[in-house]
Amino acid sequence: MKQERSEAMDAGKKPELHTVCFAPSGRTVQVAAGSSIIKAAREAGIHINASCGGSGVCGKCRVIVEEGWVEGGLSERLSPTEQEKGYRQACTATICGTVSIRIPEGSGLKAGGLGTAVPRRNRARMHLYDIQDLREEGIFVPPVEKLFLEVPKPRAEDNMADAGRIINALASQYAEHRLIISLPVLRKLRKALREEEFRITVSLARPVQREGKSYLINVQPGNWTHRNYGLAVDIGTTTVYGALIDLNSGKVLARAGEYNGQLGYGEDVISRIIHAEKEEGLARMQELVAATINSIIATLLAQARANPGEEKGGIGREEITSITLAGNPTMTHLFLGLEPHNIRRAPYVPVTTFLPPIRATDLMLDLPSYAVALVYPLISSYVGGDIVAGVMGSGMYRTDLVTLYVDIGTNAEIVVGNREWLACAACSAGPAFEGGGITHGMRAAAGAIEDFSLNPETLEPMNITVGNKPPVGICGSGLLVMIATFLEHGVIDRGGRFNRALGSERIRQGRSGHEFVLVWQQEAGVESDIVLTEVDIENFIRAKAAIYAGIKTLVEQVGLRMSDIEQVILAGAFGSYIDLDAAMGVGLLPEVEAGRVLYVGNGSLMGAWMSGVSNHIRRDVVEVVRKMTSFELSEVASFQEQYIASLFLPHTDLSLFPAVKKRMEKVGGGR
Amino acid sequence: MKQERSEAMDAGKKPELHTVCFAPSGRTVQVAAGSSIIKAAREAGIHINASCGGSGVCGKCRVIVEEGWVEGGLSERLSPTEQEKGYRQACTATICGTVSIRIPEGSGLKAGGLGTAVPRRNRARMHLYDIQDLREEGIFVPPVEKLFLEVPKPRAEDNMADAGRIINALASQYAEHRLIISLPVLRKLRKALREEEFRITVSLARPVQREGKSYLINVQPGNWTHRNYGLAVDIGTTTVYGALIDLNSGKVLARAGEYNGQLGYGEDVISRIIHAEKEEGLARMQELVAATINSIIATLLAQARANPGEEKGGIGREEITSITLAGNPTMTHLFLGLEPHNIRRAPYVPVTTFLPPIRATDLMLDLPSYAVALVYPLISSYVGGDIVAGVMGSGMYRTDLVTLYVDIGTNAEIVVGNREWLACAACSAGPAFEGGGITHGMRAAAGAIEDFSLNPETLEPMNITVGNKPPVGICGSGLLVMIATFLEHGVIDRGGRFNRALGSERIRQGRSGHEFVLVWQQEAGVESDIVLTEVDIENFIRAKAAIYAGIKTLVEQVGLRMSDIEQVILAGAFGSYIDLDAAMGVGLLPEVEAGRVLYVGNGSLMGAWMSGVSNHIRRDVVEVVRKMTSFELSEVASFQEQYIASLFLPHTDLSLFPAVKKRMEKVGGGR
Repeated sequence: MKQERSEAMDAGKKPELHTVCFAPSGRTVQVAAGSSIIKAAREAGIHINASCGGSGVCGKCRVIVEEGWVEGGLSERLSPTEQEKGYRQACTATICGTVSIRIPEGSGLKAGGLGTAVPRRNRARMHLYDIQDLREEGIFVPPVEKLFLEVPKPRAEDNMADAGRIINALASQYAEHRLIISLPVLRKLRKALREEEFRITVSLARPVQREGKSYLINVQPGNWTHRNYGLAVDIGTTTVYGALIDLNSGKVLARAGEYNGQLGYGEDVISRIIHAEKEEGLARMQELVAATINSIIATLLAQARANPGEEKGGIGREEITSITLAGNPTMTHLFLGLEPHNIRRAPYVPVTTFLPPIRATDLMLDLPSYAVALVYPLISSYVGGDIVAGVMGSGMYRTDLVTLYVDIGTNAEIVVGNREWLACAACSAGPAFEGGGITHGMRAAAGAIEDFSLNPETLEPMNITVGNKPPVGICGSGLLVMIATFLEHGVIDRGGRFNRALGSERIRQGRSGHEFVLVWQQEAGVESDIVLTEVDIENFIRAKAAIYAGIKTLVEQVGLRMSDIEQVILAGAFGSYIDLDAAMGVGLLPEVEAGRVLYVGNGSLMGAWMSGVSNHIRRDVVEVVRKMTSFELSEVASFQEQYIASLFLPHTDLSLFPAVKKRMEKVGGGR
Repeated sequence: MKQERSEAMDAGKKPELHTVCFAPSGRTVQVAAGSSIIKAAREAGIHINASCGGSGVCGKCRVIVEEGWVEGGLSERLSPTEQEKGYRQACTATICGTVSIRIPEGSGLKAGGLGTAVPRRNRARMHLYDIQDLREEGIFVPPVEKLFLEVPKPRAEDNMADAGRIINALASQYAEHRLIISLPVLRKLRKALREEEFRITVSLARPVQREGKSYLINVQPGNWTHRNYGLAVDIGTTTVYGALIDLNSGKVLARAGEYNGQLGYGEDVISRIIHAEKEEGLARMQELVAATINSIIATLLAQARANPGEEKGGIGREEITSITLAGNPTMTHLFLGLEPHNIRRAPYVPVTTFLPPIRATDLMLDLPSYAVALVYPLISSYVGGDIVAGVMGSGMYRTDLVTLYVDIGTNAEIVVGNREWLACAACSAGPAFEGGGITHGMRAAAGAIEDFSLNPETLEPMNITVGNKPPVGICGSGLLVMIATFLEHGVIDRGGRFNRALGSERIRQGRSGHEFVLVWQQEAGVESDIVLTEVDIENFIRAKAAIYAGIKTLVEQVGLRMSDIEQVILAGAFGSYIDLDAAMGVGLLPEVEAGRVLYVGNGSLMGAWMSGVSNHIRRDVVEVVRKMTSFELSEVASFQEQYIASLFLPHTDLSLFPAVKKRMEKVGGGR
């Protein structure tokens, strides 16, 4: 499951870090407590042979723990003497403190373990601003705010209506002047005022426009301002993620993800739309995703109850006052019950881009009747609220730098711009990054090779799998690193063909051309060798070419060159795990200085979180959407040329990738 | 039933009028076709003996039809010769054309039929402005307006969302710029746009504030702007009245009234409040009145279907886009489900005065989900939306003249002011005007004596009953005229005591002091004589004194004298039937020139109608409510003194009633 490896968006909660020092290279890396040695090595850019995916089967990854605390890593493949000397299997040993580890010859590279890969980049920087920034700017005011009022009691000389008293108290105590009191509040107002001697907490739903009116949506006798909670939800085609947020601190109290209940009706948006076009189909799609969200809400509340920091009883459902949701255009339509028909029919028209605030219960959500649902606006039939949310959550819309925001999935959504201007487009990459069209391709589930390294001398691989399970296939991030590594070491040429002259038994003629054996059957979790074929590589090249061509076309449409891009923000499940060197190495992404790349993870959820705690950001959303120019790539003549020019590794025009070019020249120009 | 005699608010539909000429007086009067001769005589101020209430029993009211077309009026009490000579019973003969009628001696007054009463005033002038005025002022724009749009179709170069197309079309075709599209509209928008080639009708709910946003609440494929209907409803404690309005013409298409379903829980507001305070009581009260309104809506739609001017199929329920409602504070609370508890408990605080627009279905009304319910705001626990509506509907808030608006029922609500300022108060008159505390008192149902005249020589009465039925009791309007007539002819003195010296068998000692026999048992619809006692008169005096004292206190509170009142507007079921001479004669109302009195009938319904067709007036409502100063009479020291001074006919201070004084002096100073 995707969520197994989701780093999601918890900027508030940092894992404990330990220092790992590798000998003989002397390279040092900081990794989270509980990481395996093999993952630490990969972080440090050090190769350790490990073809079994870190599952402990092949026994090739033995290392010596010279100092420090490591758990596990023992195996019958290690003799008692070896074990005493500190030998461990790197794939199953986990780091519990500062450790010094030596890579023996045979496990690593011959040349003393000096990896060619540079250390992986720090992923801690996930967005350009955070909750603390909102506080400092004075814009940490959630869309639904709770205020405490001490209301003067009525007297014979002052028999103003209860509602008028609340209005006056808000005006005098908080300078709140524009207010509508909802009927349900009026219905309970009399009793609520008198229950705690006219001391009362009001929940105000703020308008998106400054000149608009606030809605008084709930009242509670006494002071309850310290208990105000919101939800942020990313409605993904495959997975729906939710977060429970304390609207006083802005912190995420619980996170949960679940497969979208619509999955049974197809994996992609088109099959969902086709079903929604059938009789009762739309209602069914709507119910399913609402049920998924309701299940996530229940999980979040259960997690909060289990949280030891919480008061007994946890957080009540009735304490949730708002929910902010973002999704792609199809998911947004289906969730709202809007007909998605014209999303898949030229000229591709969504029903709407902006959504008014909606009663959460009108969307079949198990939330109190007063809870407000705020749904992220779309840009077009291609670019949805998830992308807008990413632009908001990452802070892209506030930066001065020319920034490229990319969310890569079956479709890639691309945004270019800064605080002044924004342009977006979407292009279809095909399913290669999600395992489609790849012989042993798969989603990033347990056993998927998600990371990879190669001993350039022996061509012995280091396969790292999701969950340290015996390999069963290759997911998108593994595929990318694999192809970049093969290219770097000349195992494939720039056209994606294997170098038949290398003389390794791992390169062989398969059923559909040459292939590379990543995992021999006996070490695999499936009943065959796991291979990467030239056809797979072709499919990958087509996918990356579409994305690169999309970016380049968009950048040129706004009058810039690729070299003008000063910053890159990577979003999405795939984007979170993308290896930047690999992505630039194969020509998926333009070359940008390492420090100028941000991984925002689930940008959609992050944006929902950010605008869910700051009505100011919610206002900015409107501006951002108005500001954003949407380009239809299929309508741009140069897009096809760009695509064809990109069907090479990294590109036909190497001058676009100066660093790759330099490295290639060093290694020997692709052997 | 009240509605039998309701003249209500149909300014658009004038009945056919016929001229009736009475000999020997030569007095001429215009009456509606179908009126009885006896009612025409009363209109003309001519007395005809008729103690049986116009039911044809006593046979005293014989007249001669000298010319013209009359139906009925035949009886076995008239000999064939008499019938041939044109003799008819005035009570059962109805006028069908221009007629000349002679009152024979014995039927009328001895002195040749010259009545002392002046002709009754023209009641045609019901308010200070009408639909035509709204058109001329350019403010005939209903709160929900339908606009027809021709929306540009999407193309590859223009794939704006459907909602955006509507917004742009409204901006370019109607300069409408501030808009929110509701979720239900978004849900049907795609299909609706494409059903008639992007020709579409939108229903816009206008904001009450000019700077607010319009809500797009419905869409219909094609052009349906010619079909837009609204409802106006007056929620009375006893009776609920409704009108179906064509929002294109402003005309009332159908009217209906029904007893308030809450009647089973008590006749007055206090008993309703007490019940609402019980468990589930409020919900029950709410359901009952909603059911009454729903029944009225069904009746109105059935009437519209039966209307020959309507297209086949009549008006569809789904064509109703708005409903405007007004009621007293308690009725408003119960209808909305607001707790009325503090309306009857010092310091008398309503839950709210202003109400936001509400979905009609949230109020359990059988109306389409998009229909908007607009509820008239209250002033205080005493002065409700019915009075505000009356002020709006009558046009009082637009006049330059210092105007007194009075709605008389168990409580009298009083408003004084003009376009610049407004002040209001309420006082309890007791139930005398509704038949309470009067020996033979009753509501204005069939058989109630509603009008009265007296032969001052013989003391022979002319009783006119509701529905021309044998008399069963006396309703408020009859009581008022009776007492004024007795006072004028010296049958009672200014303290309300019968003149024992008159020597009529009709004045006798009853069980509780002296009394006047209005109807002998054999002519009555009950098993006893129908009488008016001195105790009855005392109760009446107390009621009228409370109202007069309330008016005088309020007028003096704003720094004026009674003689500063330039115009009087009478509202309410009782107010519609009040005889002005009688009301001034007994000191219920201050003396004002006859031409300066308006009868608005159901002012509440009229106001709901007026603001229901003009959003401009709906805006004015807010200003009027803000402008109105509410006085609590029980808090004003002089009120009690004023009351005591008013416990006389017409008043202890005769200089307040110069015309009455003059007339009394002429007749002989009360014999």
